[in-house]
Amino acid sequence: MKILVTGFDPFGGEPVNSALEAVMGMADEIAGAQIIKLEIPTVFGLCIEKVREAIITHQPDVVMCVGQAGRRFGVTPEKVAINLDDLPYGADNAGNCPKDQPVAADGPAAYFSTIPVKAMTEAIKAKGLPASVSYTAGTAVCNHMMYGALHLAATEFPELRAGFVHVPFVTKQVVARPGFPSMKLEDITTALEACVETIVKGEEDEKIVGGQTH
Amino acid sequence: MKILVTGFDPFGGEPVNSALEAVMGMADEIAGAQIIKLEIPTVFGLCIEKVREAIITHQPDVVMCVGQAGRRFGVTPEKVAINLDDLPYGADNAGNCPKDQPVAADGPAAYFSTIPVKAMTEAIKAKGLPASVSYTAGTAVCNHMMYGALHLAATEFPELRAGFVHVPFVTKQVVARPGFPSMKLEDITTALEACVETIVKGEEDEKIVGGQTH
Amino acid sequence: MKILVTGFDPFGGEPVNSALEAVMGMADEIAGAQIIKLEIPTVFGLCIEKVREAIITHQPDVVMCVGQAGRRFGVTPEKVAINLDDLPYGADNAGNCPKDQPVAADGPAAYFSTIPVKAMTEAIKAKGLPASVSYTAGTAVCNHMMYGALHLAATEFPELRAGFVHVPFVTKQVVARPGFPSMKLEDITTALEACVETIVKGEEDEKIVGGQTH
Amino acid sequence: MKILVTGFDPFGGEPVNSALEAVMGMADEIAGAQIIKLEIPTVFGLCIEKVREAIITHQPDVVMCVGQAGRRFGVTPEKVAINLDDLPYGADNAGNCPKDQPVAADGPAAYFSTIPVKAMTEAIKAKGLPASVSYTAGTAVCNHMMYGALHLAATEFPELRAGFVHVPFVTKQVVARPGFPSMKLEDITTALEACVETIVKGEEDEKIVGGQTH
Repeated sequence: MKILVTGFDPFGGEPVNSALEAVMGMADEIAGAQIIKLEIPTVFGLCIEKVREAIITHQPDVVMCVGQAGRRFGVTPEKVAINLDDLPYGADNAGNCPKDQPVAADGPAAYFSTIPVKAMTEAIKAKGLPASVSYTAGTAVCNHMMYGALHLAATEFPELRAGFVHVPFVTKQVVARPGFPSMKLEDITTALEACVETIVKGEEDEKIVGGQTH
Repeated sequence: MKILVTGFDPFGGEPVNSALEAVMGMADEIAGAQIIKLEIPTVFGLCIEKVREAIITHQPDVVMCVGQAGRRFGVTPEKVAINLDDLPYGADNAGNCPKDQPVAADGPAAYFSTIPVKAMTEAIKAKGLPASVSYTAGTAVCNHMMYGALHLAATEFPELRAGFVHVPFVTKQVVARPGFPSMKLEDITTALEACVETIVKGEEDEKIVGGQTH
Repeated sequence: MKILVTGFDPFGGEPVNSALEAVMGMADEIAGAQIIKLEIPTVFGLCIEKVREAIITHQPDVVMCVGQAGRRFGVTPEKVAINLDDLPYGADNAGNCPKDQPVAADGPAAYFSTIPVKAMTEAIKAKGLPASVSYTAGTAVCNHMMYGALHLAATEFPELRAGFVHVPFVTKQVVARPGFPSMKLEDITTALEACVETIVKGEEDEKIVGGQTH
Repeated sequence: MKILVTGFDPFGGEPVNSALEAVMGMADEIAGAQIIKLEIPTVFGLCIEKVREAIITHQPDVVMCVGQAGRRFGVTPEKVAINLDDLPYGADNAGNCPKDQPVAADGPAAYFSTIPVKAMTEAIKAKGLPASVSYTAGTAVCNHMMYGALHLAATEFPELRAGFVHVPFVTKQVVARPGFPSMKLEDITTALEACVETIVKGEEDEKIVGGQTH
């Protein structure tokens, strides 16, 4: 089994991106599966292109994208991605600030994750680390990437499964940010490895029938 | 123009539901439109049935459902409803506690609101009241009702527009709940009336192309 | 009975100060007591001077100072003031930014409120409004004023009772501040009037023996 | 130099106390100073007795007490202890639930820390860990212990310096508590060792003149 795990480059003036750092710390082989790690740009459109190229090159069974969500208290696998790009303020790393745009003009309103978010959450908690399922990946580059990966699977790579995991700041990022939660870098990496183990073991959540082929 | 506005009955042991109280305080005519107010049960399935019956009886142009979200700081029009019923704990007022069930087995993964959430949010703020667009209505009865109303529009009532607005606790509900935000009942009612005015005036958000017919 | 109630002028770039607005809306007579309302400057030292002058002029029985605490969810009578001026950043309205300075070089480490904070809190809640006792008034001008008033009572005006009440933002202040709690202006005024009623009725908390003469 | 560091036993039904675990993980010698670690009971009165006995036995130069504060985001040295025991609900580990009682009937209203809270905070941050000075230790056993240690110094052991540090939950404590911040156990221990190094090096905050002899 081959799993492509992606992390975004730093954005918003941050020197680091906790997601990228945690991804790069993951083992190269987990539960017998080969892990391919990829840094992708925090840029609308381009991030999906980079993942598409990597899918063609590496032919993974699963794409698990990882992003930083600075207000989250634990690791949060995302259940759903919506067909909406909308930055209320700020811009991505290429200066894009879309308002009310679709990710894919021909895509459905949303895709549910095809990796098992509840089982992944339980696996993280079993490691003694905080986790919960999230039902919104926002409307910025993270949701865009998750939707994009699931849309690639739906339209070009029918065997591919895909999903997204948001992670908190690492501790060093909150030293000058009183009131922000964080996790230790090694712990975030452990949590991501637990997600991968869950996928490799073939664990599945109960299926949602509506909205998506299974 | 005719607008059906619904509020849920109290749940979770609460003596009141801020949404229902605020809805019942709305004017019967707003900006020339007739307002029909309906109490609906906080019960999966049944709430949609009640709204369907009211649509047949009253033939409204718009259905705006309103629900209580006790941790919210302002009034939050919902952008999207997902095809997922999932109560992690507790039950609805009839004892149902669905896990990972679709709202509609034959429905799409999500529907976007067909009432203008950004314009409604700006109208509320123009009244001096806090508001923001929300991108998750959760996975409980509120999301279920929003998805259900949009699914009715998509499958049975093609002229109908529908959406959902979450409101905070009213002030009296937080007296014994230190650390919970609230709004004054009259202010929530004013905010809901501002939403209706926005709809009646024909204001629209930019359209999302993907995922839904417009 | 005569009660001097003070509110600070706006600071920090805010167009209004919720404390001042709420104080100015109070009745001129409450439960038979005369209410004297005074705007005071958000300036270390000067605010105490202004209150001292008003005490000499009006000879009140009680001084109740009121200040804005923008993160608070309800009205919070303060139990204790400490002998410490310390602004970690920013400055008062005259540009002062003291670090680790005493309010009064010859004063004790702290004074407890001599108005009944628990009874006041219960009276506010009995009006259906959120309230709780606070055990820190911070280290900025609010704590400075509370300490200053109690030090005046201890050193110059032995019959005088004094205390401090923090209030949240009023609703209009949070329209552009998602995630901040607020209260309606009239409700803050009602809460302050409930505090005064409690004082006039002669209600008392249990006394703390240590640290202070009673 | 000899430093007595105390941690409370678990309370409130928790299987562990993050403060105690972190204290027990500290080195036995830090920057040349001998560290004496002591578990104390989460019981009003008794905890002070235990510390008094340990002072007599070990004759430390400094007592640094450590307690758990489950809502805190970082390590927070406490600036001030007040002469007030007040549990709004619940009880200590011996069933005591004092209301509005003084810690010491003959004591002052408050004591400021005699270990340097700002310097300690900076030392923790220099290790890449979150910290801030706190201006309230509450009104439960933690504040009681801090006040008690400073009152012992003021009345019986004039050479002794004392203070208190609150620490967050350790990560394992928040697995089943979504929305609570935490720190890694090793990081809390590192933070406490940084506090001790600061004390040993003789660093001092600016002195507060009022309220206390220096």
